[in-house]
Amino acid sequence: MTVFTDKQKIQILEDLVAIQSVNDHETQVATYLQRLLADHDIQAQLQPLSESRANLVAEIGSGHPLLCVSGHMDVVSPGDVTAWQSDPFKLTARDGKLYGRGITDMKAGLAALVIAMIELHAAGRPTKGTIRLMATVGEEVGETGSEAFYEDGAMQDVDALLIGEPTGYHIFSAHKGSMDVKLTSQGKAAHSSMPELGQNAIDPLLSLLSQANEAFRKTDRVNATLGELTFNTTVFNGGNQVNSIPATATAELNVRTIPEFDNASVTQVLQQLVTQVNEQGGHVTMDIYMSQSPVEEPKDNVLSNLAATIGASYAGAPIPKLALPAVTDASNLLKDKGNNYPFIVFGPGNETAHQVDEYVDRQMYLDFTALYQKLMTAYLGE
Amino acid sequence: MTVFTDKQKIQILEDLVAIQSVNDHETQVATYLQRLLADHDIQAQLQPLSESRANLVAEIGSGHPLLCVSGHMDVVSPGDVTAWQSDPFKLTARDGKLYGRGITDMKAGLAALVIAMIELHAAGRPTKGTIRLMATVGEEVGETGSEAFYEDGAMQDVDALLIGEPTGYHIFSAHKGSMDVKLTSQGKAAHSSMPELGQNAIDPLLSLLSQANEAFRKTDRVNATLGELTFNTTVFNGGNQVNSIPATATAELNVRTIPEFDNASVTQVLQQLVTQVNEQGGHVTMDIYMSQSPVEEPKDNVLSNLAATIGASYAGAPIPKLALPAVTDASNLLKDKGNNYPFIVFGPGNETAHQVDEYVDRQMYLDFTALYQKLMTAYLGE
Repeated sequence: MTVFTDKQKIQILEDLVAIQSVNDHETQVATYLQRLLADHDIQAQLQPLSESRANLVAEIGSGHPLLCVSGHMDVVSPGDVTAWQSDPFKLTARDGKLYGRGITDMKAGLAALVIAMIELHAAGRPTKGTIRLMATVGEEVGETGSEAFYEDGAMQDVDALLIGEPTGYHIFSAHKGSMDVKLTSQGKAAHSSMPELGQNAIDPLLSLLSQANEAFRKTDRVNATLGELTFNTTVFNGGNQVNSIPATATAELNVRTIPEFDNASVTQVLQQLVTQVNEQGGHVTMDIYMSQSPVEEPKDNVLSNLAATIGASYAGAPIPKLALPAVTDASNLLKDKGNNYPFIVFGPGNETAHQVDEYVDRQMYLDFTALYQKLMTAYLGE
Repeated sequence: MTVFTDKQKIQILEDLVAIQSVNDHETQVATYLQRLLADHDIQAQLQPLSESRANLVAEIGSGHPLLCVSGHMDVVSPGDVTAWQSDPFKLTARDGKLYGRGITDMKAGLAALVIAMIELHAAGRPTKGTIRLMATVGEEVGETGSEAFYEDGAMQDVDALLIGEPTGYHIFSAHKGSMDVKLTSQGKAAHSSMPELGQNAIDPLLSLLSQANEAFRKTDRVNATLGELTFNTTVFNGGNQVNSIPATATAELNVRTIPEFDNASVTQVLQQLVTQVNEQGGHVTMDIYMSQSPVEEPKDNVLSNLAATIGASYAGAPIPKLALPAVTDASNLLKDKGNNYPFIVFGPGNETAHQVDEYVDRQMYLDFTALYQKLMTAYLGE
């Protein structure tokens, strides 16, 4: 059943883009969606995490199978707005493309999921099983929203998970984990003519990070789908003048983990290296301030197979099943779900996420509002 | 012969401190000294290096022996002036100490040398040999003044060198060299989820600097007076966000060299390490932007022996002969002079150089104006 015209569907997306939910203020998105769902007889609950940030949950149908569909409500900063061709927070159509910050990542996917649920519900469906929407806060920084859903047990009775992140006509069932680590080295200042009166804070980090490059890059641990773990020192700052022994130095690391070399193993290796340089006189502390686990579900699962079949008719070509480079809320939502769980990342969008002049293809967005309805009912086996 | 009262000697020092020659404006110091010398019948020449910076040269006597006495006219920044107990550019007397920026390093030494020359000249001395004053610019940054003197051949006919840097009642005839080096590494930015699309600019520097620590610290080359070479990475900056592969990184190094592991050898080792990381895919360039050679003359030389004897009567104790931690203009002035040259660093002052509330002991300053006269005539063998 069609509830919305194309124009109305684009108006919903325009309304969402206008809400500047840059790593905050997701409550405004959640409240907008709650009202939209209520207008169509679906009750949604806000689950506040702070004054301005709230997850949203809503269901249609009842019983099992229970398919969870999920999307995040936050967007990244537009950066230099003068670099944009049009106002990043005003949806602008040009040449069949809809421009705006967060439109591809992932307000189009979120809107398509909500519209699909409203239109299914208006048609009296599903007659069997449940679709549960989990809209999250803070996916771009820290994934606190999906963590809260996991901690609250919201995933416990879920049979399959679809995340509407922007893949276009590709399907993903696996991605690496990600860890952000900060190392702080404390030394003692001195004039460079008398270094023995000080302690160089840069040296222990040089030693530690060189050894870390060896430990993480010269390994035979590899994942058939995801490839190797990657380890990078991404930020290094120490000292402030050439003729002073540096008193402090800090380094930040990003590690992309695989099941074969997971977050716990990485933590252990790093901790050993820290202990080692400290035994040699260093004063280094480590703070793992972000840690998302890798996700690896079968490429071929009931959900991915249905999505490939249904999606192909819209794509006009077979849909490849790949490994996603980026991390998603699945790192939290799929904790405890094992390695044989029906999971896909599949949503409208493209590689303009996080970029200037981010856009979604107008027709792809509209197609996913219908595609999702077919996929939801197919999975529930109606 | 006494030309000046103590009060007048302190007035000269007060006038010099009032000139804010912070790594510039040495011409004002040179012009002041030129006028002071002219008032007492000594002709001095300014040798401009730029509009606001000029070396000063003046002589008394004629023929050989020729003793060069040298001091620099620049001072370092006072830093946070609110941290000073009194205005750093107004000489202030408290408890027998004279406070001011640059008073110990080294306007007191410079004033004492000039006063000594004026008083000797007024007494019709020296009757044999020459005292040549070389007052330099920019000793604290780059030693451009002494470099210009060396390049102009001003040292060619000099038989012995006294530098009036603040040693108090200690004598130095050797110091390490110093090199400031900047390494710049060029990489390519990429999102940390796809590091293979970028090139990490921090990694080549981690590798290079770890190897440099090995090469320079695990060596058996040592100087009996100066000890070992020291090598320190003093500044390291790379990357700006944890989830981006860093596109650029820079490191600054300070090396304190010894004759057994000199500036040329250090350059060669560093160049080899740069070549090696570049052969492994790095894009590292090196800029040695400051290079001062080590100085090592005999502890016991004609000048140091005279200074020890004459100085002891003022110090009231034997004067130790040591190795100076810091670099002086001697790195330039003693080029080509070999390892058996009469050279000392010996001047009024203390360890408050470069610090807040820098001071010189009032009596020590006054004593050096007389001590220098005795040392000059003793060396000339009058």
